[in-house]
Amino acid sequence: MSAKKPPAVHDVPIGIDADGTRSEFDSMGSVDVPADRYWGAQTQRSLQHFSIGGDRMPKDVYHAYGYVKKAAALVNNAAGRLPDWKRDAIVRAADEAIDGRLDEHFPLFVWQTGSGTQSNMNVNEVLANRAIQLVGGTLGSQEPVGPNDDVNMGQSSNDTFPTAMHIAALSLIDDHVLPELRALHASITRKSDGWMDVVKIGRTHLEDAVPLSVGQEWSGWAAQLETCVSDIEHARDALLELSIGGTAVGTGLNAPPGFSVDVARQIAELTGKPFTTAPNKFAAQGSLDAMVRAHAALRSLAVALMKIANDTRWLASGPRTGLAELLLPQNEPGSSIMPGKVNPTQCEAIVMIAIQVLGNDSGVAFAGSQGNFELNAMRPIIINSFLHSARILADGMERFRLYSVDGTDLNRDAISDYVDRSLMLVTALSPTIGYQNAARIAEDALANGQTLREAAVASGHVSEDDFDKIVKPETMIGSGVAGA
Amino acid sequence: MSAKKPPAVHDVPIGIDADGTRSEFDSMGSVDVPADRYWGAQTQRSLQHFSIGGDRMPKDVYHAYGYVKKAAALVNNAAGRLPDWKRDAIVRAADEAIDGRLDEHFPLFVWQTGSGTQSNMNVNEVLANRAIQLVGGTLGSQEPVGPNDDVNMGQSSNDTFPTAMHIAALSLIDDHVLPELRALHASITRKSDGWMDVVKIGRTHLEDAVPLSVGQEWSGWAAQLETCVSDIEHARDALLELSIGGTAVGTGLNAPPGFSVDVARQIAELTGKPFTTAPNKFAAQGSLDAMVRAHAALRSLAVALMKIANDTRWLASGPRTGLAELLLPQNEPGSSIMPGKVNPTQCEAIVMIAIQVLGNDSGVAFAGSQGNFELNAMRPIIINSFLHSARILADGMERFRLYSVDGTDLNRDAISDYVDRSLMLVTALSPTIGYQNAARIAEDALANGQTLREAAVASGHVSEDDFDKIVKPETMIGSGVAGA
Amino acid sequence: MSAKKPPAVHDVPIGIDADGTRSEFDSMGSVDVPADRYWGAQTQRSLQHFSIGGDRMPKDVYHAYGYVKKAAALVNNAAGRLPDWKRDAIVRAADEAIDGRLDEHFPLFVWQTGSGTQSNMNVNEVLANRAIQLVGGTLGSQEPVGPNDDVNMGQSSNDTFPTAMHIAALSLIDDHVLPELRALHASITRKSDGWMDVVKIGRTHLEDAVPLSVGQEWSGWAAQLETCVSDIEHARDALLELSIGGTAVGTGLNAPPGFSVDVARQIAELTGKPFTTAPNKFAAQGSLDAMVRAHAALRSLAVALMKIANDTRWLASGPRTGLAELLLPQNEPGSSIMPGKVNPTQCEAIVMIAIQVLGNDSGVAFAGSQGNFELNAMRPIIINSFLHSARILADGMERFRLYSVDGTDLNRDAISDYVDRSLMLVTALSPTIGYQNAARIAEDALANGQTLREAAVASGHVSEDDFDKIVKPETMIGSGVAGA
Amino acid sequence: MSAKKPPAVHDVPIGIDADGTRSEFDSMGSVDVPADRYWGAQTQRSLQHFSIGGDRMPKDVYHAYGYVKKAAALVNNAAGRLPDWKRDAIVRAADEAIDGRLDEHFPLFVWQTGSGTQSNMNVNEVLANRAIQLVGGTLGSQEPVGPNDDVNMGQSSNDTFPTAMHIAALSLIDDHVLPELRALHASITRKSDGWMDVVKIGRTHLEDAVPLSVGQEWSGWAAQLETCVSDIEHARDALLELSIGGTAVGTGLNAPPGFSVDVARQIAELTGKPFTTAPNKFAAQGSLDAMVRAHAALRSLAVALMKIANDTRWLASGPRTGLAELLLPQNEPGSSIMPGKVNPTQCEAIVMIAIQVLGNDSGVAFAGSQGNFELNAMRPIIINSFLHSARILADGMERFRLYSVDGTDLNRDAISDYVDRSLMLVTALSPTIGYQNAARIAEDALANGQTLREAAVASGHVSEDDFDKIVKPETMIGSGVAGA
Repeated sequence: MSAKKPPAVHDVPIGIDADGTRSEFDSMGSVDVPADRYWGAQTQRSLQHFSIGGDRMPKDVYHAYGYVKKAAALVNNAAGRLPDWKRDAIVRAADEAIDGRLDEHFPLFVWQTGSGTQSNMNVNEVLANRAIQLVGGTLGSQEPVGPNDDVNMGQSSNDTFPTAMHIAALSLIDDHVLPELRALHASITRKSDGWMDVVKIGRTHLEDAVPLSVGQEWSGWAAQLETCVSDIEHARDALLELSIGGTAVGTGLNAPPGFSVDVARQIAELTGKPFTTAPNKFAAQGSLDAMVRAHAALRSLAVALMKIANDTRWLASGPRTGLAELLLPQNEPGSSIMPGKVNPTQCEAIVMIAIQVLGNDSGVAFAGSQGNFELNAMRPIIINSFLHSARILADGMERFRLYSVDGTDLNRDAISDYVDRSLMLVTALSPTIGYQNAARIAEDALANGQTLREAAVASGHVSEDDFDKIVKPETMIGSGVAGA
Repeated sequence: MSAKKPPAVHDVPIGIDADGTRSEFDSMGSVDVPADRYWGAQTQRSLQHFSIGGDRMPKDVYHAYGYVKKAAALVNNAAGRLPDWKRDAIVRAADEAIDGRLDEHFPLFVWQTGSGTQSNMNVNEVLANRAIQLVGGTLGSQEPVGPNDDVNMGQSSNDTFPTAMHIAALSLIDDHVLPELRALHASITRKSDGWMDVVKIGRTHLEDAVPLSVGQEWSGWAAQLETCVSDIEHARDALLELSIGGTAVGTGLNAPPGFSVDVARQIAELTGKPFTTAPNKFAAQGSLDAMVRAHAALRSLAVALMKIANDTRWLASGPRTGLAELLLPQNEPGSSIMPGKVNPTQCEAIVMIAIQVLGNDSGVAFAGSQGNFELNAMRPIIINSFLHSARILADGMERFRLYSVDGTDLNRDAISDYVDRSLMLVTALSPTIGYQNAARIAEDALANGQTLREAAVASGHVSEDDFDKIVKPETMIGSGVAGA
Repeated sequence: MSAKKPPAVHDVPIGIDADGTRSEFDSMGSVDVPADRYWGAQTQRSLQHFSIGGDRMPKDVYHAYGYVKKAAALVNNAAGRLPDWKRDAIVRAADEAIDGRLDEHFPLFVWQTGSGTQSNMNVNEVLANRAIQLVGGTLGSQEPVGPNDDVNMGQSSNDTFPTAMHIAALSLIDDHVLPELRALHASITRKSDGWMDVVKIGRTHLEDAVPLSVGQEWSGWAAQLETCVSDIEHARDALLELSIGGTAVGTGLNAPPGFSVDVARQIAELTGKPFTTAPNKFAAQGSLDAMVRAHAALRSLAVALMKIANDTRWLASGPRTGLAELLLPQNEPGSSIMPGKVNPTQCEAIVMIAIQVLGNDSGVAFAGSQGNFELNAMRPIIINSFLHSARILADGMERFRLYSVDGTDLNRDAISDYVDRSLMLVTALSPTIGYQNAARIAEDALANGQTLREAAVASGHVSEDDFDKIVKPETMIGSGVAGA
Repeated sequence: MSAKKPPAVHDVPIGIDADGTRSEFDSMGSVDVPADRYWGAQTQRSLQHFSIGGDRMPKDVYHAYGYVKKAAALVNNAAGRLPDWKRDAIVRAADEAIDGRLDEHFPLFVWQTGSGTQSNMNVNEVLANRAIQLVGGTLGSQEPVGPNDDVNMGQSSNDTFPTAMHIAALSLIDDHVLPELRALHASITRKSDGWMDVVKIGRTHLEDAVPLSVGQEWSGWAAQLETCVSDIEHARDALLELSIGGTAVGTGLNAPPGFSVDVARQIAELTGKPFTTAPNKFAAQGSLDAMVRAHAALRSLAVALMKIANDTRWLASGPRTGLAELLLPQNEPGSSIMPGKVNPTQCEAIVMIAIQVLGNDSGVAFAGSQGNFELNAMRPIIINSFLHSARILADGMERFRLYSVDGTDLNRDAISDYVDRSLMLVTALSPTIGYQNAARIAEDALANGQTLREAAVASGHVSEDDFDKIVKPETMIGSGVAGA
């Protein structure tokens, strides 16, 4: 805004070579901050008032915020509101935030103001001071780059924070959750394909049932995961809609015309993701519905994973007094007191992760319901929970795949022994001799310790030949996975 | 299966003219049942062993089961497995079940076997006895129509119960939830349209913020509901996939080739909904993932409704010591002790319904995670919770619309008075005089009990004329709902 | 309040011999109600505005309300505020409510005003009209007994509804939950005692571990339930504190001095439970914390029951391909398609009940957090959820005891076979030969299909004699249950 | 175990002066670990297999484990199983763990084996190597102090981990949660006492109600917190019972007689807390019921805090368009875009913390229900959630007290203005003129914009004098907090 020669943006490395403290100010007065940090007065106030537990606002949020600030600077500049040198300085600082190189300057806690204002101001202050440093100004002077007037130009925490939430959440989904989910799906599918003809006994209600193949059983797990992919993709779509441009209450006050559309388009370009502007800013800022939906999709994945992990650990139980159909890789000694013990530890980790995600989900839905008027002030807990769930699910799936699924083998002796002993093959006789007669045969066999064949023939309802023709496990498993 | 002349299906009215008890049997022996009921031995056993609380399996499940049994009979007949007269008798009985005319013959509790077998057998027994009655047979004889061999032909509880769950859930969504959701959306949209130009003060963090219009605020609620529609429609798609044909463990044992596809097609024809066969029966029977997803969509609706109901009751709070912007219809005296009190009772009902749905949702996800091997044996709790949530949401939305939203009016005096008094209009000065100067003006006004205009002019940063030009609430609300 | 001869209270049987409708009025005007019902205008308005789903306010609440109204009438009379004849008429009507004889006159839904005012008015109206009938007055005239001025004298919904909640909740705990919990505990203890010397293999992580006795395992379940008793008793104490006397906002406005203490004492006398007045009425009416705590105790029970039911069904899995240590009573055929199948259906019901209680608990805590100022307006959902949880837990425990625990038997062959085969007995060698050597022995045995004894001797670390002296399962189970 | 002169325990400072890696071994073979860390092979394996997310096992667990290992060494030594020098070396290392000086050697993740075995082995390995260092041995040699045979002597993860959980949980309750809870209670009580005579309008259903005093309102919050203290103290009792001595499955195999009692007593001495041995080890190891109960008590606190924080922020809403009865301290600028905005940020943090605790609680109860047989393998998630909840509650209460409650002031003008304007004072007329007449007066006043006095006199039911005598807010608030 000055008429004199514009400042040059120098190539100053990140870092402040200073000891002790530096004075920073905001509308309430001045505050001392650590001299080697870029943050300003509001960040410092938040550190004092909100040092609660060990939960820090996830760094992913700040990386995402980097895109928001960069895009806003570019659009403000294009609209003639921000001079080129200021744009350049802010963009460079924002790029450093995106790359994680300013991470140590974002120290705030999760439990802060519900709008995320303090984290937005943390970003504004850090980028402003870094930009000031780049143009040779005095840190803490807010000159020639101000945190509110320049870095936050045309923006509010109310629209930028949920924008950063969506970017961060979507990035983690795209870069980590979906790839790991697909990799696990592929691994399970490979196992399923390889074991499609290994006949085993099915179990319903934990009790012996009719046969299926090991591959069919695993195909069910794969199918569960496949649906999770499409469910996450559906939920992901809602995250593509950004609130930026709504400013304080959704009306776009102090943002120039077209700002919402332009910044969303700019963020899309910068990230390579098809972000657009949210069609209704009042909903986008007054609610966090898109996040609640997205977390529900993570929860669906947790539900599916718990089934898979539980099945796995039960089928691997033993080795001498359990079901013992599966042989899991032994990754570590299982017990500090029982020598030689092997435990399904990867499965247990998955089960706990799933429970954690369900607990998070319950909190996210609660928080999502607590918006008031033009703001849902439960943003920090929601983004923290979402990123937490997404990360432990993705990491957990990777470990589970590498250290359990990929190395799982079959105990074929046990599997075929179960097929031989089960009484539920009697079901195949039912269409021929009727349900009630078949039931009596099964009960007789159990009571007398007979094989099914012995009891069936003894019943007089079926000949040995007919029994052998009808009761063939390998023909009882249908074909493929559709159950047609 | 008999060579003699087939029995005729007579037009016998529903009802059994008998007192006392009748003997029925199953594979475990005989049991006395009430003589005027169609059910058989297994239903009676379940009544004895599972009379727990007051939760009965919802009748919707039995209506849906009617479609399953009818479709199976038609397909079994077409495949030459069931004679025409048997088909006709079963179909007629099934139609009566569909229409709810056999409701009193389905007495079982929710807390029963986790597969729903007892409810399937209840249907099998009732339809068999009703069919026997129609062809002039002896009730309880299982002749010439058997509950297992005929009504349940080619089926298992394991595939039919989730099929009935999907039909029942989808019907309630289509016939009740979505229509009421759309009606509420339309009602809110009408209000939003009508009040699009009424300027009011926005509130963030419950604190005074910059203006928006009443219509914009309501448009946010409408937009939330609109997304709920699409979310429910997405979840609904998964319910269209039916497990029927998988029989006991997903392999289709004892079902003829093509049965799964044929019965799904038949159910589609009978219901007019595009049901198809589930692509993987092991997932469809071993999990209840589609139901978990569908309930998550109901939860999203609950989350949105809670925001709307809470905003409504706060905006209507008063009349003399609250916000008092909205005037709700007075439907009843509010207090047994405080004369003349009016309370936002419809909002409170919605809030409680939303909490109930979130509680149900938590249980549904938990139950959904507890499948083992070829069966998730948590079906009764899940279908009961789903139908519960769906019904109270739909009914609640209808009541809320009729008795709150439709009759809501504005307290225009209060609304405009707030606009006049608010200090946050100072925000509009920020681009001109800078954030820090603007902040001081707001603080001075509050401290000195001044209007914003007085404090602004006193500050020297802006003239009276400029203030009046810049700080015009009606120009501060942007245009429309996109915040562009 | 008239000087003339007081009306006599006649012995009129319950019931109104009338058809069609009767006009009733309240402060908003007159309303037609069914002529054969005692309720008045406000009940009718609620029926119209809140017919949501199938959830009716539990009758237990009205029975409890009978005590409240009776006690208030007695205290008001003793204080000279209510004439004897009015007291007698109200007390008689209240006694009928307590006994459940007026149940059909309490039709309201759960989803109503959050204070329970409509149910309080329902009681006031029904008791007033019934009292009017008893003294020969005209139904609907509110003369000579008024619902607000007489039946509700000195009371508000705000203090009476939570009072009724506490009475209803505590009654169900005392009369049903605790007796059934103690009975189940006794049944499990009997089994534990009987099987205290049957050595079995323990399992940790689902994997083979060192031995314990069957009785010890069951003693763990008994101990869990024992703690549940004390936890429920602790939570119960908080329910003994009643809010009655606080009237509208906790200050006791319009109640005479001493009313809170006197009515609480009167309720204690009538019910035989040591109820007292809540020490702080603002907390008692503004929160529902005591209910939240009480439900948490139910949840603890649910958590314990799920463990017991899950252990039971897993230990009973089989008969040929599961763990098969326990033999559960066969109560019904298990499958509609698989003849002869027996399933752990009682366990499944318990697991589902436990999940329902956890879901309810989540809703109760949420609702409990949503109080505002002088009222928590989430009462109906909380009392409905509490009574629901309590009833299904109590009923479920009874069924589980009668139809599963009491009839459970041991498969002693399988149990001792597992002891013989397990490799984890190697643990006993660890103090003698060291953990690492013991580990190698177990691994060798598994790899080579040896018994533990074979592998141990082959290792050279222990002689046959020493092995037999050290590795004796029956000496490896310690003594009793304390693990000392 | 050697006959030669026992090693001396030297005063070696913590730290390993080495680069690169060191070879460590366990029963599965050898593994390279960082040379400057004390941990061994099993810790390293866990780091590889379970690097999931950012959740590390809380350090509190390891500090508590220090007590367990120290107490076990002392008891083992006293029983003649461990020589003095070994005891001394282990005790010194354990003391260092207790003091947090070995924290960087405990790197494991939360998502690991469900028994906590890996964390137990981490402790065993670190203490063994540190003890080896103290006696001048070779790190990684497991000589002369072994992780399994010496540090873990007479112990299993199955009994030590829950013992450490109880110690850690109880310590945090005693040292942080209860003190901060009591401090907040005291602060609120001070405010309550100071404002006991300031009359204000009560609100029920968010709507105007009858008066109470500000002090009474605050006394309700204090009373809620008071009950939380007693609830936490009740739950705390169950944590005093320790499972140590049960070893692998609760039978105490490989622990000497009396070990459980002795070690519990020793831990009690070391910690100064009255720990005792759990009366039933099968329950203590097969379930985590005591933790579930303890977390429920934290949840009760969260529920109470949410009410207090919500009331506070609503009462402080404004300053010009909200309720504006309370004046909160301004700790920071509230908005990045709206100059001069003050927000109830401490309240928002408390609300989010409360929701987090409820989410955690939901997960804890779920996990608590998932025990199988002799082990609940959901320990890491439960202790992590518990410590998380406890810490954010305690920290949050401190911040809320310091930065909100202590600095809160009254807006006495607004408060008395509301009293003057409210119509619900009409309630005081009800006993004199009847509920229905009083109702009409309130409605008339509202409809005609009159004061209550004007409308009352106009109604003819009461004279000016009587009105002034009866409707005196200061006499309508009863006396004190009991509502008697």
